[in-house]
Amino acid sequence: RIMRPDDANIAGNVHGGTILKMIEEAGAIISTRHCNSQAGEPCVAALARVERTDFLSPVCIGEVANVSAEITYTSRHSVEVQVNVMSENILTGAKKVTNKATLWYVPLSLKNVNKVLEVPPIQYTRKEQEDEGKKRYEEQKLDRLETKQRNGDVIFPVINPEPHTVGYSQSSLIHLVGPSDCTLLGFVHGGVTMKLMDEVAGIVAARHCKTNIVTASVDAINFHEKIKKGSVITISGRMTFTSNKSMEIEVFVDADPFVDESRERYRAVSAFFTYVSLSKDGKPLPVPQLLTETEDEKRRFEEGKGRYLQTKAKRQAQTQQAAQQ
Amino acid sequence: RIMRPDDANIAGNVHGGTILKMIEEAGAIISTRHCNSQAGEPCVAALARVERTDFLSPVCIGEVANVSAEITYTSRHSVEVQVNVMSENILTGAKKVTNKATLWYVPLSLKNVNKVLEVPPIQYTRKEQEDEGKKRYEEQKLDRLETKQRNGDVIFPVINPEPHTVGYSQSSLIHLVGPSDCTLLGFVHGGVTMKLMDEVAGIVAARHCKTNIVTASVDAINFHEKIKKGSVITISGRMTFTSNKSMEIEVFVDADPFVDESRERYRAVSAFFTYVSLSKDGKPLPVPQLLTETEDEKRRFEEGKGRYLQTKAKRQAQTQQAAQQ
Amino acid sequence: RIMRPDDANIAGNVHGGTILKMIEEAGAIISTRHCNSQAGEPCVAALARVERTDFLSPVCIGEVANVSAEITYTSRHSVEVQVNVMSENILTGAKKVTNKATLWYVPLSLKNVNKVLEVPPIQYTRKEQEDEGKKRYEEQKLDRLETKQRNGDVIFPVINPEPHTVGYSQSSLIHLVGPSDCTLLGFVHGGVTMKLMDEVAGIVAARHCKTNIVTASVDAINFHEKIKKGSVITISGRMTFTSNKSMEIEVFVDADPFVDESRERYRAVSAFFTYVSLSKDGKPLPVPQLLTETEDEKRRFEEGKGRYLQTKAKRQAQTQQAAQQ
Repeated sequence: RIMRPDDANIAGNVHGGTILKMIEEAGAIISTRHCNSQAGEPCVAALARVERTDFLSPVCIGEVANVSAEITYTSRHSVEVQVNVMSENILTGAKKVTNKATLWYVPLSLKNVNKVLEVPPIQYTRKEQEDEGKKRYEEQKLDRLETKQRNGDVIFPVINPEPHTVGYSQSSLIHLVGPSDCTLLGFVHGGVTMKLMDEVAGIVAARHCKTNIVTASVDAINFHEKIKKGSVITISGRMTFTSNKSMEIEVFVDADPFVDESRERYRAVSAFFTYVSLSKDGKPLPVPQLLTETEDEKRRFEEGKGRYLQTKAKRQAQTQQAAQQ
Repeated sequence: RIMRPDDANIAGNVHGGTILKMIEEAGAIISTRHCNSQAGEPCVAALARVERTDFLSPVCIGEVANVSAEITYTSRHSVEVQVNVMSENILTGAKKVTNKATLWYVPLSLKNVNKVLEVPPIQYTRKEQEDEGKKRYEEQKLDRLETKQRNGDVIFPVINPEPHTVGYSQSSLIHLVGPSDCTLLGFVHGGVTMKLMDEVAGIVAARHCKTNIVTASVDAINFHEKIKKGSVITISGRMTFTSNKSMEIEVFVDADPFVDESRERYRAVSAFFTYVSLSKDGKPLPVPQLLTETEDEKRRFEEGKGRYLQTKAKRQAQTQQAAQQ
Repeated sequence: RIMRPDDANIAGNVHGGTILKMIEEAGAIISTRHCNSQAGEPCVAALARVERTDFLSPVCIGEVANVSAEITYTSRHSVEVQVNVMSENILTGAKKVTNKATLWYVPLSLKNVNKVLEVPPIQYTRKEQEDEGKKRYEEQKLDRLETKQRNGDVIFPVINPEPHTVGYSQSSLIHLVGPSDCTLLGFVHGGVTMKLMDEVAGIVAARHCKTNIVTASVDAINFHEKIKKGSVITISGRMTFTSNKSMEIEVFVDADPFVDESRERYRAVSAFFTYVSLSKDGKPLPVPQLLTETEDEKRRFEEGKGRYLQTKAKRQAQTQQAAQQ
């Protein structure tokens, strides 16, 4: 579809959240279709996890985003989908790869939302494809267990914060979950949640550096808990780390199912977004260093640095590997 | 894309206007891409005309609409696009053809919006394709000239109208044209206009028969005049004719470019929509006969009857032809 | 226009904010049209004030809202517009008055946004109309001066608040001002701001009483400061007062023009919303009493009680007056 002014920031760059939402919609369609391809209970595929996603190049207003999706692995109860986004300038004809994303879905019964159904197996053209898929499946399973622990933190506001401190740029928004945010089962689409998360992360980044900012990447996001129609969700973001030219922002989603009195507020999702600041001609600018004050802030900064160095090392390894091939 | 609650009426049937908007977006993308495929002045394709479009089967919430578009003819200054819409129930896998629409676009220069550029010719696989296209091109050109006259009428409100009279169901809405309604050139997308027209026609039909109604067809629509960002548009609808099981509604679009002092209010588009009333299990219901009061109403009723009989005859001829093949 | 699922809460009642947005759009159109009716500099009418507005009856999904607007007074630099909203159930034909609202607009030059232009005078059919309008004009002018002082307060979060305290239900959201939120001049439509304010107020009310809630009224809102495209706005709400069957919520809007480094964050608007809680058959329910803890909360509760008693007295006077006529 064509990218509109509302999909973009003032500088004309399309929000990463808009792209994430399109990716998730494509993934949900292909996996729901696949899981219903054999006779049996009808089901809807629910997003369980998105792997780390890099935004390779910014998309602009007026460009057309082409989204294609393919099922690359199936376990007994889950589907792995690979989604590619190409942006095309229909005036010049220029095309470029914007994103390659990997998503995991789980089929939930339309009759009983707590029942996970079985996934029809796909055919692999080569045995290695199945083995590699199985390896990816085991890895993400471990990671999902791990992040389940990482929750519980809350963001408290700061009075008269200094510029470039954590308190200065932290932000949160509430959103009432309406019908068009939801699947047939009455639960929020993963893509809607990711779009809101990117919105908060973008505001944190813009408050910190007061320039044109764009999403560079999102780390893996796990969706442990469903969010029901009518819930109020609070999405909070705080900066955790800055390198010379990038900012890492942690984003939490808390759900408040206040129409369902039996449930307390709970942490539904959390993730790290990385943003860069761009000059008018689209080049990365230096970002102001984050000022950490408390022990927790310093610890989170060091953890962020660890993630940053790890990603950097991985990317260099890939570049070298590619050069050798 | 997946059809959402907001795309549909209370009975879950997707508005014809939502489908028309998707069709137009696909047409605009493919023809803008084609017209920029050769080096030269960059341009944006503007909708000039939509041929008569039948809605073959209603689409429901939760279904996925697949839109495909193909360029079928090019004249020196215009492009004919064929757009097909298939709706797919991703739970059952059932697919059906929803629409086949034909649209004409004209490339306008990005630098000078009043300059129509030349269209790169397409290659035809058979000579007959080109000849048939040329015939369609000549026919629509004539029709466009004709409808240019048909304007000027206004809808006046009626005090305490009787049920089933024209005055009882007539309706109008105003819309302020915002940035996300517009193309890169700052003019309203044809699809946005058609969606609003269908919305008004639907309200007229529902007021008349007070049941669940769906769009059955739209006659050819010509877009004589562009509508600029910041204009206020008034969309008015009145019933012109009823058969046993269908209602014809005439819809006008008037634009009021009130920030641009040099222009008076003008009629931008007009068209006839045909609606049917559906029972709970989706079968067509009889509709109350339209009560005509004035001479003009009686004349319009007869004209509507003419269009209805002509369409019916055409359809019968096609069915016979198909049976003979 | 037809009310959609996304315009409403889970119980099917349309949000007061959706209605306020429609009212403001109608007011902006008619006053912009009037102010451009004489040759001179083109201008856009900007909302300066909305008088206290009562929601007389709830609107439901599937109903059609008819909005009509009329200019009732003009001063040298401002326009008073009366907007009426009727909701119509198009299946039964039943109509009811939903709102009567009075809005004040000021014409700003399209060329120079800080220049207020002159308003063409309207013709009054009776001399009294002009005199009454002048009286209303003077009154609102005084009120605008007064509320300019009333600002500066901030909402601080509370850790582990008890149910029914102020801290328990207070809420805030951030919103990045996008192109479709704005007028041609690049400033937020007053209606967009009011819709977001109603959204926050509604979440506060729902958190407090955990039932289906609807907007009953909004006190007069003054728009002292424009909000520019690209700003981040923070909308915060806290409960100030409860009567047996109503809740008063104070809402602030703070704008953070972070792309424009020369400006600090500023208070753009504030207002009081009154909500009621409805049972399943639409009758008002008792609401839990607000627990006040700090001195400020107790003072605000008393002030709210004052407003509540004043409004109640005014309404009784009007009812008696009407009975005597």
